[in-house]
Amino acid sequence: MALRGGIDLGGTKIESVVVDGDGAVVGQARHPTPHDGGPPAVINALAGGLREAAKAAGVETAELTGVGVGSPGEIDDGTVAHARNLPDWDDTFPLASALSEQVGAPVKVANDVGAAVDAEAKLGAGKDYGSFLGVWWGTGVGGAVVIGGERWLGRGAAGEIGHTVVKIGGATCECGRRGCLEAYAGRGAMERKARKAVAGGTKTDLFDLMEKHGRQRLTSGIWGRALDRNDKLAEKLIHRAVVALGAGIGSVVNLLDVEAVVIGGGLGTRFGQPYVEKIEQQMMKHLFVPERPPAVLPAALGDLGGAIGASLLVG
Amino acid sequence: MALRGGIDLGGTKIESVVVDGDGAVVGQARHPTPHDGGPPAVINALAGGLREAAKAAGVETAELTGVGVGSPGEIDDGTVAHARNLPDWDDTFPLASALSEQVGAPVKVANDVGAAVDAEAKLGAGKDYGSFLGVWWGTGVGGAVVIGGERWLGRGAAGEIGHTVVKIGGATCECGRRGCLEAYAGRGAMERKARKAVAGGTKTDLFDLMEKHGRQRLTSGIWGRALDRNDKLAEKLIHRAVVALGAGIGSVVNLLDVEAVVIGGGLGTRFGQPYVEKIEQQMMKHLFVPERPPAVLPAALGDLGGAIGASLLVG
Repeated sequence: MALRGGIDLGGTKIESVVVDGDGAVVGQARHPTPHDGGPPAVINALAGGLREAAKAAGVETAELTGVGVGSPGEIDDGTVAHARNLPDWDDTFPLASALSEQVGAPVKVANDVGAAVDAEAKLGAGKDYGSFLGVWWGTGVGGAVVIGGERWLGRGAAGEIGHTVVKIGGATCECGRRGCLEAYAGRGAMERKARKAVAGGTKTDLFDLMEKHGRQRLTSGIWGRALDRNDKLAEKLIHRAVVALGAGIGSVVNLLDVEAVVIGGGLGTRFGQPYVEKIEQQMMKHLFVPERPPAVLPAALGDLGGAIGASLLVG
Repeated sequence: MALRGGIDLGGTKIESVVVDGDGAVVGQARHPTPHDGGPPAVINALAGGLREAAKAAGVETAELTGVGVGSPGEIDDGTVAHARNLPDWDDTFPLASALSEQVGAPVKVANDVGAAVDAEAKLGAGKDYGSFLGVWWGTGVGGAVVIGGERWLGRGAAGEIGHTVVKIGGATCECGRRGCLEAYAGRGAMERKARKAVAGGTKTDLFDLMEKHGRQRLTSGIWGRALDRNDKLAEKLIHRAVVALGAGIGSVVNLLDVEAVVIGGGLGTRFGQPYVEKIEQQMMKHLFVPERPPAVLPAALGDLGGAIGASLLVG
């Protein structure tokens, strides 16, 4: 039976799956994304994750009919550039050929959020809607607009809701510009803000939890645990993120009047329905036609949605 | 020969045209929009303007094959509600039937900005682009997104770029919400801000110019004259508007990666190319892919674009 590989390459973790012809997951593996070593280290981690998933499925990676990879950054014909949430990955690097060499199967690469939103459109929370906005709340804040059942790509770079401006003259974003949604809601930005607060004397359990759980970053799980403990700084920064997400999403709804909003990504999936509702409440404050809001839903395919979506690239 | 009417009902003025079968303007009239008297006063002004345009074309209004009206507010089957920039027009009012009764010809109503953007898409600055954003900078800030050559309507209310959030917790908008683009860039908001500044002791020629020219509002012409005189308050408020427009437009480009941006409306048309370039400069500060910006262009059909666009409704 023809098996395919799918990998979701995120700023924090790498999810790998092997799926069968019906799209059912028959093997999987999760690993942290390397913090250094540049593209070669990332390629090694991708290959290692895929081997583990293939082993769980009882095959060698070279037996896979193909491997799809959802990646951050700018994708062009199997190469990836400007992947700001990956280690030292600014220049163009040939991800597809480098990974293909290691795993012995053809590799296709697409935008990570795009792959995950495609999966939600075909199999998940978006499947009943002709138009929806996907918001992927994780290390960064990614997005995709589905119109007429298809992702709208523009000239190839559409979807950057994380770099819509929610506050003129506001916080500096990792992208170097000011006031971007991601500068408030991206987990990377939230961690930088938390470190600054601690340096300024604010008390928080965030970094104790991080060390206790053997993490090097404030993962979605760490933020979740801090909220469970009613950590004031975590509550404050997550609220700030939710307010920004509500404004950014409300703006898109006012502009495009989509039928639904689907919220995924590491934080979106971890926090689920209760936080989807908090984001919805903030969005409502900005809707120009509040009597007919869009449906606001969590992504249905969970942590594996990105990897399953990537496997659709070679389906 | 079949003649059609087209009316652009704006917050400041009413432009009426009569066009022939080729879309050439054969009669026109311009009148200020009434400041009070509610929908009946507006209907009288629409009928009066159309009669004048018809007279210039050598016909009676009852001889027109149809009349299209571009209106602000929420349009539904010839009725208009929540037209905030028109006098006392919050409830639903049957514009089409009331005007048809006065002019003796069938009337169709559509969104004012939509009609103007349709005209630019078919005949004007947008005609060479498959996707573009129209930004109508006037009393309010309207918008329309053209995708695949067609205006994207969403569930009927798409296009409200004026109510995208450019500053969380920012200026209060006429719509009652906070931080909307229109709260910074709409001529209505700019006039309120100017009146506050004067009440606070700021010096400006704006209101002297307004009185000298027999206006009751700060029209686009008054703002233009004040800029010609290097009026500091006018310069400051227009710059604030340009910064907000650049941020709002940059956000849409990051989200949708459209090929072009077309800037029209009362202020957009009055200020033309030099201010289109200033807005473009502000937009550039926010582009996530700055090496491939969209074309940024002034609307090509000028002051009559909205009325010509409205005439396409019955074409």
